[in-house]
Amino acid sequence: MRRTISGFSNPTVKVLRSLRDKKHRRREQRFLAEGLRLLTDAREAGRLPEILVMATGREDHPLLAALEADVIAAGGDVIETGEDILAKITGKENPQAVAGVFAEFDTGLGALDRTAAPIWLVAQALRDPGNLGTMLRTGDAVGAGGLILIDDCADPFSVEAVRASMGAVFTQAIAQARWEDFIGWLRQGPGQLVAASLRDARDYRTAPYAAPCFLMVGNESRGLPAEYEDACDLRVTMPMLGRADSLNAAVAGAVLAYEALAHLRG
Amino acid sequence: MRRTISGFSNPTVKVLRSLRDKKHRRREQRFLAEGLRLLTDAREAGRLPEILVMATGREDHPLLAALEADVIAAGGDVIETGEDILAKITGKENPQAVAGVFAEFDTGLGALDRTAAPIWLVAQALRDPGNLGTMLRTGDAVGAGGLILIDDCADPFSVEAVRASMGAVFTQAIAQARWEDFIGWLRQGPGQLVAASLRDARDYRTAPYAAPCFLMVGNESRGLPAEYEDACDLRVTMPMLGRADSLNAAVAGAVLAYEALAHLRG
Repeated sequence: MRRTISGFSNPTVKVLRSLRDKKHRRREQRFLAEGLRLLTDAREAGRLPEILVMATGREDHPLLAALEADVIAAGGDVIETGEDILAKITGKENPQAVAGVFAEFDTGLGALDRTAAPIWLVAQALRDPGNLGTMLRTGDAVGAGGLILIDDCADPFSVEAVRASMGAVFTQAIAQARWEDFIGWLRQGPGQLVAASLRDARDYRTAPYAAPCFLMVGNESRGLPAEYEDACDLRVTMPMLGRADSLNAAVAGAVLAYEALAHLRG
Repeated sequence: MRRTISGFSNPTVKVLRSLRDKKHRRREQRFLAEGLRLLTDAREAGRLPEILVMATGREDHPLLAALEADVIAAGGDVIETGEDILAKITGKENPQAVAGVFAEFDTGLGALDRTAAPIWLVAQALRDPGNLGTMLRTGDAVGAGGLILIDDCADPFSVEAVRASMGAVFTQAIAQARWEDFIGWLRQGPGQLVAASLRDARDYRTAPYAAPCFLMVGNESRGLPAEYEDACDLRVTMPMLGRADSLNAAVAGAVLAYEALAHLRG
Protein backbone atom coordinates (compact mmCIF):
# COMPACT_ATOMS: atom_id res chain seq x y z
CA MET A 1 0.00 0.00 0.00
CA ARG A 2 1.22 3.48 -0.81
CA ARG A 3 0.55 6.49 1.36
CA THR A 4 1.88 9.86 2.43
CA ILE A 5 2.45 10.90 6.02
CA SER A 6 2.84 14.55 6.88
CA GLY A 7 2.38 14.73 10.65
CA PHE A 8 4.90 14.00 13.39
CA SER A 9 2.17 12.63 15.62
CA ASN A 10 1.13 9.97 13.11
CA PRO A 11 1.08 6.61 14.93
CA THR A 12 3.18 4.90 12.24
CA VAL A 13 5.87 7.55 12.70
CA LYS A 14 5.85 6.83 16.42
CA VAL A 15 6.25 3.10 15.88
CA LEU A 16 9.07 3.63 13.38
CA ARG A 17 10.86 6.03 15.73
CA SER A 18 10.57 3.56 18.59
CA LEU A 19 12.60 0.98 16.62
CA ARG A 20 15.77 2.79 17.57
CA ASP A 21 15.15 1.53 21.07
CA LYS A 22 16.02 -2.08 21.88
CA LYS A 23 12.96 -2.67 24.05
CA HIS A 24 10.63 -1.62 21.25
CA ARG A 25 12.58 -3.53 18.60
CA ARG A 26 12.18 -6.64 20.71
CA ARG A 27 8.43 -6.06 21.11
CA GLU A 28 7.87 -5.31 17.44
CA GLN A 29 10.37 -7.88 16.17
CA ARG A 30 11.26 -5.30 13.54
CA PHE A 31 14.37 -3.24 12.83
CA LEU A 32 15.32 -0.24 10.76
CA ALA A 33 17.95 -0.03 8.01
CA GLU A 34 18.84 3.20 6.24
CA GLY A 35 20.12 4.15 2.86
CA LEU A 36 19.62 2.98 -0.70
CA ARG A 37 22.83 1.01 -0.74
CA LEU A 38 21.96 -1.02 2.35
CA LEU A 39 18.40 -1.58 1.17
CA THR A 40 19.62 -2.67 -2.24
CA ASP A 41 22.04 -5.11 -0.61
CA ALA A 42 19.06 -6.46 1.32
CA ARG A 43 16.94 -6.75 -1.81
CA GLU A 44 19.69 -8.56 -3.70
CA ALA A 45 19.98 -10.93 -0.76
CA GLY A 46 16.26 -11.60 -1.01
CA ARG A 47 15.20 -9.46 1.95
CA LEU A 48 12.54 -6.85 1.32
CA PRO A 49 11.39 -4.30 3.90
CA GLU A 50 7.82 -4.60 5.11
CA ILE A 51 7.68 -0.82 5.08
CA LEU A 52 9.72 1.39 2.78
CA VAL A 53 9.97 5.03 3.89
CA MET A 54 11.06 7.61 1.32
CA ALA A 55 11.66 11.34 1.55
CA THR A 56 9.34 13.39 -0.65
CA GLY A 57 12.18 15.52 -2.01
CA ARG A 58 14.37 12.56 -2.95
CA GLU A 59 16.14 12.25 -6.27
CA ASP A 60 14.96 9.54 -8.64
CA HIS A 61 17.13 6.48 -8.85
CA PRO A 62 16.55 3.27 -10.82
CA LEU A 63 17.53 1.13 -7.81
CA LEU A 64 15.01 2.95 -5.66
CA ALA A 65 12.31 2.51 -8.29
CA ALA A 66 13.11 -1.22 -8.44
CA LEU A 67 13.00 -1.50 -4.67
CA GLU A 68 9.69 0.33 -4.50
CA ALA A 69 8.16 -1.92 -7.15
CA ASP A 70 9.33 -5.06 -5.35
CA VAL A 71 7.97 -3.88 -2.00
CA ILE A 72 4.58 -3.11 -3.52
CA ALA A 73 4.54 -6.42 -5.40
CA ALA A 74 5.30 -8.26 -2.17
CA GLY A 75 2.38 -6.56 -0.43
CA GLY A 76 4.50 -4.18 1.64
CA ASP A 77 3.87 -0.54 2.47
CA VAL A 78 5.51 2.43 0.82
CA ILE A 79 5.39 5.64 2.81
CA GLU A 80 6.37 9.05 1.51
CA THR A 81 7.14 11.66 4.07
CA GLY A 82 9.09 14.85 4.63
CA GLU A 83 12.79 14.93 5.35
CA ASP A 84 12.06 16.35 8.79
CA ILE A 85 9.97 13.31 9.71
CA LEU A 86 12.53 10.94 8.22
CA ALA A 87 15.13 12.65 10.40
CA LYS A 88 12.93 11.98 13.44
CA ILE A 89 12.54 8.33 12.49
CA THR A 90 16.21 7.65 11.89
CA GLY A 91 17.50 9.98 14.62
CA LYS A 92 19.95 11.57 12.20
CA GLU A 93 20.07 15.24 11.33
CA ASN A 94 20.80 14.53 7.69
CA PRO A 95 19.02 11.25 7.08
CA GLN A 96 19.44 9.23 3.95
CA ALA A 97 16.47 9.65 1.63
CA VAL A 98 15.20 6.14 2.23
CA ALA A 99 14.82 3.70 5.10
CA GLY A 100 13.20 0.32 5.49
CA VAL A 101 11.58 -1.64 8.28
CA PHE A 102 12.49 -5.33 8.26
CA ALA A 103 11.31 -8.29 10.24
CA GLU A 104 14.04 -9.59 12.54
CA PHE A 105 15.42 -12.97 11.62
CA ASP A 106 16.86 -15.11 14.36
CA THR A 107 17.58 -18.25 12.45
CA GLY A 108 17.68 -20.42 15.54
CA LEU A 109 20.40 -23.02 15.95
CA GLY A 110 18.17 -25.83 14.74
CA ALA A 111 17.71 -24.19 11.36
CA LEU A 112 21.44 -23.68 10.70
CA ASP A 113 22.99 -25.97 8.10
CA ARG A 114 26.42 -26.23 9.65
CA THR A 115 27.94 -27.98 6.65
CA ALA A 116 26.87 -25.18 4.30
CA ALA A 117 29.97 -23.11 5.13
CA PRO A 118 33.51 -23.90 6.30
CA ILE A 119 33.54 -21.08 8.86
CA TRP A 120 31.07 -19.82 11.45
CA LEU A 121 31.72 -16.90 13.78
CA VAL A 122 30.67 -17.08 17.42
CA ALA A 123 30.51 -14.02 19.69
CA GLN A 124 30.16 -14.47 23.43
CA ALA A 125 28.69 -11.59 25.47
CA LEU A 126 29.96 -8.96 23.03
CA ARG A 127 28.65 -5.62 24.26
CA ASP A 128 29.56 -3.29 21.43
CA PRO A 129 27.03 -3.34 18.56
CA GLY A 130 29.71 -1.93 16.26
CA ASN A 131 31.84 -5.00 16.96
CA LEU A 132 28.89 -7.28 16.13
CA GLY A 133 28.26 -5.45 12.87
CA THR A 134 31.95 -5.62 11.99
CA MET A 135 31.96 -9.37 12.68
CA LEU A 136 28.97 -9.82 10.35
CA ARG A 137 30.84 -7.85 7.68
CA THR A 138 33.96 -9.98 8.17
CA GLY A 139 31.83 -13.13 8.09
CA ASP A 140 30.44 -12.14 4.72
CA ALA A 141 33.98 -11.54 3.43
CA VAL A 142 35.37 -14.92 4.51
CA GLY A 143 32.33 -16.80 3.27
CA ALA A 144 31.13 -17.67 6.75
CA GLY A 145 27.70 -19.20 7.21
CA GLY A 146 26.65 -16.80 9.93
CA LEU A 147 27.16 -15.34 13.36
CA ILE A 148 26.09 -17.14 16.52
CA LEU A 149 25.55 -14.91 19.54
CA ILE A 150 26.13 -16.58 22.88
CA ASP A 151 24.80 -15.27 26.18
CA ASP A 152 24.04 -11.61 26.61
CA CYS A 153 25.29 -9.86 23.47
CA ALA A 154 24.49 -6.43 22.08
CA ASP A 155 21.58 -6.33 19.64
CA PRO A 156 22.65 -7.27 16.09
CA PHE A 157 19.61 -5.37 14.79
CA SER A 158 20.50 -2.07 16.44
CA VAL A 159 21.06 0.83 14.07
CA GLU A 160 24.77 0.82 14.89
CA ALA A 161 25.25 -2.90 14.25
CA VAL A 162 23.23 -2.84 11.03
CA ARG A 163 25.27 0.10 9.79
CA ALA A 164 28.63 -1.47 10.71
CA SER A 165 27.61 -4.72 9.01
CA MET A 166 27.46 -2.89 5.65
CA GLY A 167 24.66 -5.14 4.46
CA ALA A 168 25.99 -8.39 5.91
CA VAL A 169 23.15 -8.43 8.43
CA PHE A 170 21.05 -9.48 5.42
CA THR A 171 23.37 -12.17 4.10
CA GLN A 172 24.70 -13.84 7.23
CA ALA A 173 22.56 -16.19 9.29
CA ILE A 174 22.14 -14.90 12.85
CA ALA A 175 21.31 -17.17 15.75
CA GLN A 176 21.11 -16.25 19.43
CA ALA A 177 21.53 -18.93 22.07
CA ARG A 178 22.54 -19.64 25.64
CA TRP A 179 25.91 -21.37 25.98
CA GLU A 180 24.39 -24.66 27.17
CA ASP A 181 22.08 -24.79 24.16
CA PHE A 182 24.88 -23.89 21.76
CA ILE A 183 27.37 -26.46 23.02
CA GLY A 184 24.65 -29.11 23.12
CA TRP A 185 23.68 -28.37 19.53
CA LEU A 186 27.31 -28.22 18.38
CA ARG A 187 28.18 -31.65 19.76
CA GLN A 188 25.30 -33.30 17.96
CA GLY A 189 27.14 -33.02 14.66
CA PRO A 190 30.45 -32.17 13.03
CA GLY A 191 32.10 -28.95 14.11
CA GLN A 192 35.40 -27.78 15.58
CA LEU A 193 35.08 -25.13 18.29
CA VAL A 194 38.05 -22.76 18.32
CA ALA A 195 38.63 -20.06 20.93
CA ALA A 196 40.77 -16.98 20.59
CA SER A 197 42.47 -17.32 23.94
CA LEU A 198 45.60 -16.47 25.88
CA ARG A 199 45.62 -19.57 28.01
CA ASP A 200 47.33 -22.82 27.09
CA ALA A 201 46.92 -21.88 23.45
CA ARG A 202 48.56 -22.86 20.17
CA ASP A 203 50.01 -20.42 17.68
CA TYR A 204 47.12 -19.43 15.44
CA ARG A 205 49.29 -19.80 12.31
CA THR A 206 49.98 -23.51 12.72
CA ALA A 207 46.79 -24.72 14.40
CA PRO A 208 44.93 -27.61 12.69
CA TYR A 209 41.70 -25.92 11.64
CA ALA A 210 38.95 -28.22 10.37
CA ALA A 211 35.63 -27.38 8.71
CA PRO A 212 33.03 -26.63 9.83
CA CYS A 213 35.11 -24.42 12.07
CA PHE A 214 33.37 -22.33 14.74
CA LEU A 215 35.59 -19.39 15.71
CA MET A 216 34.66 -17.89 19.06
CA VAL A 217 35.67 -14.57 20.61
CA GLY A 218 34.67 -13.41 24.06
CA ASN A 219 33.51 -10.30 25.83
CA GLU A 220 35.46 -7.09 25.21
CA SER A 221 36.79 -6.75 28.74
CA ARG A 222 36.55 -10.20 30.32
CA GLY A 223 37.27 -12.49 27.39
CA LEU A 224 35.76 -15.97 27.40
CA PRO A 225 34.80 -17.76 30.63
CA ALA A 226 37.35 -20.45 31.52
CA GLU A 227 34.78 -23.23 31.28
CA TYR A 228 33.89 -22.18 27.73
CA GLU A 229 37.57 -22.25 26.78
CA ASP A 230 37.85 -25.70 28.34
CA ALA A 231 35.00 -26.94 26.15
CA CYS A 232 36.79 -25.88 22.96
CA ASP A 233 38.55 -28.29 20.61
CA LEU A 234 41.32 -25.80 20.04
CA ARG A 235 42.58 -22.66 21.73
CA VAL A 236 44.68 -20.40 19.58
CA THR A 237 46.58 -17.21 20.23
CA MET A 238 48.02 -14.41 18.14
CA PRO A 239 51.36 -12.75 18.91
CA MET A 240 50.98 -9.84 21.32
CA LEU A 241 54.31 -8.05 21.08
CA GLY A 242 53.42 -4.81 22.82
CA ARG A 243 52.17 -3.74 26.19
CA ALA A 244 48.54 -4.73 25.70
CA ASP A 245 47.36 -8.28 26.26
CA SER A 246 44.43 -8.38 23.86
CA LEU A 247 43.09 -7.21 20.53
CA ASN A 248 39.79 -5.56 19.78
CA ALA A 249 37.25 -8.43 19.69
CA ALA A 250 36.19 -7.87 16.08
CA VAL A 251 39.84 -7.60 15.04
CA ALA A 252 40.74 -10.84 16.82
CA GLY A 253 37.82 -12.58 15.12
CA ALA A 254 38.89 -11.28 11.72
CA VAL A 255 42.57 -12.19 12.02
CA LEU A 256 41.52 -15.67 13.12
CA ALA A 257 38.87 -16.01 10.41
CA TYR A 258 41.27 -15.08 7.62
CA GLU A 259 43.88 -17.48 8.97
CA ALA A 260 41.37 -20.33 9.18
CA LEU A 261 40.12 -19.50 5.70
CA ALA A 262 43.64 -19.78 4.24
CA HIS A 263 44.11 -23.18 5.91
CA LEU A 264 40.71 -24.52 4.92
CA ARG A 265 41.03 -23.42 1.29
CA GLY A 266 44.42 -25.16 1.22
CA MET B 1 50.34 21.37 43.03
CA ARG B 2 47.44 19.84 44.88
CA ARG B 3 44.04 21.44 45.13
CA THR B 4 40.34 20.79 45.50
CA ILE B 5 37.68 22.11 43.15
CA SER B 6 34.07 22.14 44.22
CA GLY B 7 32.35 24.48 41.75
CA PHE B 8 31.09 23.72 38.25
CA SER B 9 31.96 27.23 37.16
CA ASN B 10 35.62 26.89 38.09
CA PRO B 11 37.71 27.96 35.07
CA THR B 12 39.85 24.80 35.22
CA VAL B 13 36.71 22.67 35.02
CA LYS B 14 35.66 24.62 31.94
CA VAL B 15 39.00 24.07 30.24
CA LEU B 16 38.96 20.36 31.07
CA ARG B 17 35.40 19.98 29.78
CA SER B 18 36.31 21.75 26.58
CA LEU B 19 38.90 19.06 25.78
CA ARG B 20 36.12 16.79 24.56
CA ASP B 21 35.80 19.16 21.64
CA LYS B 22 38.32 18.90 18.81
CA LYS B 23 38.61 22.64 18.30
CA HIS B 24 39.54 23.17 21.94
CA ARG B 25 41.90 20.18 22.00
CA ARG B 26 43.70 21.68 19.05
CA ARG B 27 43.96 25.07 20.74
CA GLU B 28 45.10 23.65 24.06
CA GLN B 29 47.26 20.89 22.53
CA ARG B 30 46.02 18.73 25.37
CA PHE B 31 43.78 15.67 25.57
CA LEU B 32 41.92 13.71 28.20
CA ALA B 33 42.32 10.04 29.14
CA GLU B 34 40.12 8.30 31.70
CA GLY B 35 40.51 5.43 34.07
CA LEU B 36 43.23 4.08 36.31
CA ARG B 37 44.15 1.34 33.88
CA LEU B 38 44.71 3.71 30.97
CA LEU B 39 46.61 6.17 33.14
CA THR B 40 48.78 3.38 34.52
CA ASP B 41 49.52 2.20 30.98
CA ALA B 42 50.55 5.77 30.22
CA ARG B 43 52.75 5.99 33.29
CA GLU B 44 54.45 2.69 32.52
CA ALA B 45 55.09 4.00 29.00
CA GLY B 46 56.72 7.08 30.51
CA ARG B 47 53.81 9.47 29.93
CA LEU B 48 52.53 11.38 32.92
CA PRO B 49 49.47 13.64 32.88
CA GLU B 50 50.08 17.33 33.43
CA ILE B 51 46.88 17.36 35.46
CA LEU B 52 45.50 14.40 37.38
CA VAL B 53 41.83 14.67 38.33
CA MET B 54 40.50 12.36 41.04
CA ALA B 55 37.04 11.89 42.53
CA THR B 56 36.85 12.71 46.23
CA GLY B 57 34.93 9.52 47.03
CA ARG B 58 37.35 7.21 45.21
CA GLU B 59 38.68 4.00 46.69
CA ASP B 60 42.37 3.89 47.57
CA HIS B 61 44.56 1.96 45.17
CA PRO B 62 48.34 1.53 45.23
CA LEU B 63 48.57 2.26 41.49
CA LEU B 64 46.66 5.48 41.97
CA ALA B 65 48.92 6.48 44.87
CA ALA B 66 51.99 5.78 42.70
CA LEU B 67 50.53 7.82 39.86
CA GLU B 68 49.72 10.70 42.17
CA ALA B 69 53.23 10.71 43.62
CA ASP B 70 54.81 10.69 40.15
CA VAL B 71 52.64 13.55 38.93
CA ILE B 72 53.52 15.67 41.96
CA ALA B 73 57.21 14.81 41.63
CA ALA B 74 57.13 15.85 37.96
CA GLY B 75 55.62 19.22 38.89
CA GLY B 76 52.11 18.41 37.68
CA ASP B 77 48.77 19.29 39.23
CA VAL B 78 46.55 16.97 41.23
CA ILE B 79 42.93 18.04 41.48
CA GLU B 80 40.35 16.47 43.74
CA THR B 81 36.75 17.05 42.86
CA GLY B 82 33.27 15.60 43.23
CA GLU B 83 31.94 12.79 41.07
CA ASP B 84 29.38 15.16 39.62
CA ILE B 85 32.08 17.50 38.34
CA LEU B 86 34.14 14.57 37.06
CA ALA B 87 31.04 13.43 35.17
CA LYS B 88 30.81 16.89 33.59
CA ILE B 89 34.46 16.80 32.58
CA THR B 90 34.40 13.36 31.02
CA GLY B 91 30.88 13.61 29.64
CA LYS B 92 29.96 10.24 31.14
CA GLU B 93 27.19 9.61 33.61
CA ASN B 94 29.26 7.14 35.57
CA PRO B 95 32.79 8.42 35.11
CA GLN B 96 35.81 6.49 36.19
CA ALA B 97 37.26 7.83 39.44
CA VAL B 98 40.31 9.30 37.77
CA ALA B 99 41.23 11.15 34.59
CA GLY B 100 44.34 12.82 33.29
CA VAL B 101 45.17 15.68 30.96
CA PHE B 102 48.11 14.96 28.67
CA ALA B 103 50.05 17.05 26.22
CA GLU B 104 49.44 15.91 22.65
CA PHE B 105 52.42 14.31 20.96
CA ASP B 106 52.66 14.51 17.21
CA THR B 107 56.03 12.94 16.66
CA GLY B 108 56.48 14.47 13.23
CA LEU B 109 57.83 12.38 10.34
CA GLY B 110 61.33 13.74 10.77
CA ALA B 111 61.55 12.37 14.30
CA LEU B 112 60.47 8.81 13.38
CA ASP B 113 63.20 6.18 13.40
CA ARG B 114 61.85 4.03 10.59
CA THR B 115 64.30 1.21 11.22
CA ALA B 116 63.24 0.87 14.85
CA ALA B 117 60.30 -1.38 13.93
CA PRO B 118 59.52 -3.81 11.08
CA ILE B 119 55.96 -2.55 10.66
CA TRP B 120 54.36 0.89 10.53
CA LEU B 121 50.66 1.50 10.04
CA VAL B 122 49.45 4.27 7.77
CA ALA B 123 45.86 5.53 7.75
CA GLN B 124 44.65 7.77 4.95
CA ALA B 125 41.64 10.04 5.61
CA LEU B 126 40.16 7.67 8.18
CA ARG B 127 37.07 9.38 9.58
CA ASP B 128 36.13 7.11 12.46
CA PRO B 129 38.09 7.79 15.67
CA GLY B 130 37.23 4.27 16.88
CA ASN B 131 39.00 2.87 13.82
CA LEU B 132 42.09 4.99 14.57
CA GLY B 133 42.13 3.83 18.18
CA THR B 134 41.73 0.21 17.08
CA MET B 135 44.63 0.62 14.63
CA LEU B 136 46.82 1.98 17.44
CA ARG B 137 45.87 -1.04 19.57
CA THR B 138 46.68 -3.43 16.72
CA GLY B 139 49.94 -1.59 16.09
CA ASP B 140 50.96 -2.15 19.69
CA ALA B 141 50.12 -5.86 19.36
CA VAL B 142 52.18 -6.44 16.20
CA GLY B 143 55.12 -4.43 17.49
CA ALA B 144 54.62 -1.61 15.03
CA GLY B 145 56.59 1.59 15.44
CA GLY B 146 53.59 3.86 15.16
CA LEU B 147 50.68 5.17 13.19
CA ILE B 148 51.08 7.74 10.44
CA LEU B 149 47.94 9.72 9.63
CA ILE B 150 47.73 10.96 6.07
CA ASP B 151 45.47 13.79 4.92
CA ASP B 152 42.34 14.63 6.85
CA CYS B 153 41.91 11.91 9.48
CA ALA B 154 39.82 11.83 12.63
CA ASP B 155 41.56 13.06 15.76
CA PRO B 156 43.69 10.33 17.39
CA PHE B 157 43.42 12.22 20.68
CA SER B 158 39.63 12.27 20.79
CA VAL B 159 38.07 10.52 23.77
CA GLU B 160 36.74 7.77 21.50
CA ALA B 161 40.11 7.08 19.83
CA VAL B 162 42.00 7.16 23.12
CA ARG B 163 39.51 4.71 24.62
CA ALA B 164 39.60 2.33 21.64
CA SER B 165 43.42 2.38 21.67
CA MET B 166 43.38 0.76 25.13
CA GLY B 167 46.57 2.56 26.09
CA ALA B 168 48.36 2.22 22.76
CA VAL B 169 47.99 5.96 22.18
CA PHE B 170 50.77 6.22 24.77
CA THR B 171 53.08 3.59 23.30
CA GLN B 172 52.77 4.09 19.55
CA ALA B 173 54.41 7.02 17.80
CA ILE B 174 51.82 9.19 16.05
CA ALA B 175 52.68 11.44 13.12
CA GLN B 176 50.29 13.48 11.01
CA ALA B 177 51.30 14.53 7.50
CA ARG B 178 50.04 15.50 4.07
CA TRP B 179 50.52 12.82 1.42
CA GLU B 180 53.20 14.76 -0.47
CA ASP B 181 55.24 15.20 2.69
CA PHE B 182 54.83 11.56 3.66
CA ILE B 183 55.82 10.09 0.31
CA GLY B 184 58.75 12.53 0.06
CA TRP B 185 59.97 11.49 3.50
CA LEU B 186 59.42 7.78 2.81
CA ARG B 187 61.51 7.80 -0.37
CA GLN B 188 64.47 9.37 1.39
CA GLY B 189 65.25 6.08 3.12
CA PRO B 190 64.40 2.39 3.27
CA GLY B 191 60.72 1.49 3.39
CA GLN B 192 58.22 -0.59 1.46
CA LEU B 193 54.83 1.04 1.00
CA VAL B 194 52.01 -1.52 0.87
CA ALA B 195 48.38 -0.69 0.09
CA ALA B 196 45.34 -2.74 0.97
CA SER B 197 43.71 -2.46 -2.42
CA LEU B 198 41.29 -4.15 -4.80
CA ARG B 199 43.01 -3.03 -7.99
CA ASP B 200 45.75 -4.93 -9.74
CA ALA B 201 46.69 -6.46 -6.41
CA ARG B 202 48.58 -9.54 -5.23
CA ASP B 203 47.24 -12.11 -2.81
CA TYR B 204 48.12 -10.80 0.64
CA ARG B 205 49.28 -14.30 1.74
CA THR B 206 52.10 -14.59 -0.78
CA ALA B 207 53.21 -10.99 -1.22
CA PRO B 208 56.92 -10.24 -0.61
CA TYR B 209 56.77 -8.03 2.48
CA ALA B 210 60.02 -6.29 3.44
CA ALA B 211 60.89 -4.32 6.57
CA PRO B 212 60.41 -1.54 7.33
CA CYS B 213 57.00 -2.21 5.89
CA PHE B 214 54.45 0.64 5.79
CA LEU B 215 50.92 -0.80 5.62
CA MET B 216 48.38 1.70 4.36
CA VAL B 217 44.58 1.60 4.49
CA GLY B 218 42.29 4.22 3.00
CA ASN B 219 39.13 6.09 3.86
CA GLU B 220 36.16 4.06 5.09
CA SER B 221 33.94 4.73 2.09
CA ARG B 222 36.24 5.82 -0.74
CA GLY B 223 39.34 3.71 -0.09
CA LEU B 224 42.72 5.04 -1.24
CA PRO B 225 43.03 7.56 -4.09
CA ALA B 226 44.29 5.86 -7.27
CA GLU B 227 47.44 7.99 -7.37
CA TYR B 228 48.36 6.89 -3.84
CA GLU B 229 47.91 3.26 -4.84
CA ASP B 230 50.10 3.87 -7.88
CA ALA B 231 52.87 5.19 -5.66
CA CYS B 232 52.93 2.00 -3.56
CA ASP B 233 55.57 -0.68 -3.89
CA LEU B 234 52.99 -3.40 -3.41
CA ARG B 235 49.23 -3.63 -3.60
CA VAL B 236 47.73 -6.58 -1.80
CA THR B 237 44.21 -7.91 -1.48
CA MET B 238 42.38 -10.26 0.85
CA PRO B 239 39.76 -12.75 -0.35
CA MET B 240 36.28 -11.21 -0.45
CA LEU B 241 34.01 -14.21 -0.84
CA GLY B 242 30.68 -12.60 -0.03
CA ARG B 243 28.58 -9.78 -1.39
CA ALA B 244 30.59 -6.93 0.08
CA ASP B 245 33.69 -5.56 -1.61
CA SER B 246 35.59 -4.31 1.39
CA LEU B 247 36.40 -4.90 5.04
CA ASN B 248 36.19 -2.48 7.92
CA ALA B 249 39.33 -0.31 7.64
CA ALA B 250 40.74 -1.27 11.04
CA VAL B 251 40.03 -4.95 10.30
CA ALA B 252 41.78 -4.75 6.91
CA GLY B 253 44.77 -3.11 8.57
CA ALA B 254 44.92 -5.79 11.25
CA VAL B 255 44.62 -8.78 8.91
CA LEU B 256 47.37 -7.27 6.77
CA ALA B 257 49.56 -6.39 9.76
CA TYR B 258 49.40 -9.90 11.21
CA GLU B 259 50.19 -11.41 7.81
CA ALA B 260 53.18 -9.11 7.31
CA LEU B 261 54.35 -9.84 10.85
CA ALA B 262 54.32 -13.59 10.19
CA HIS B 263 56.38 -13.10 7.00
CA LEU B 264 58.85 -10.69 8.55
CA ARG B 265 59.47 -12.84 11.63
CA GLY B 266 60.16 -15.72 9.27
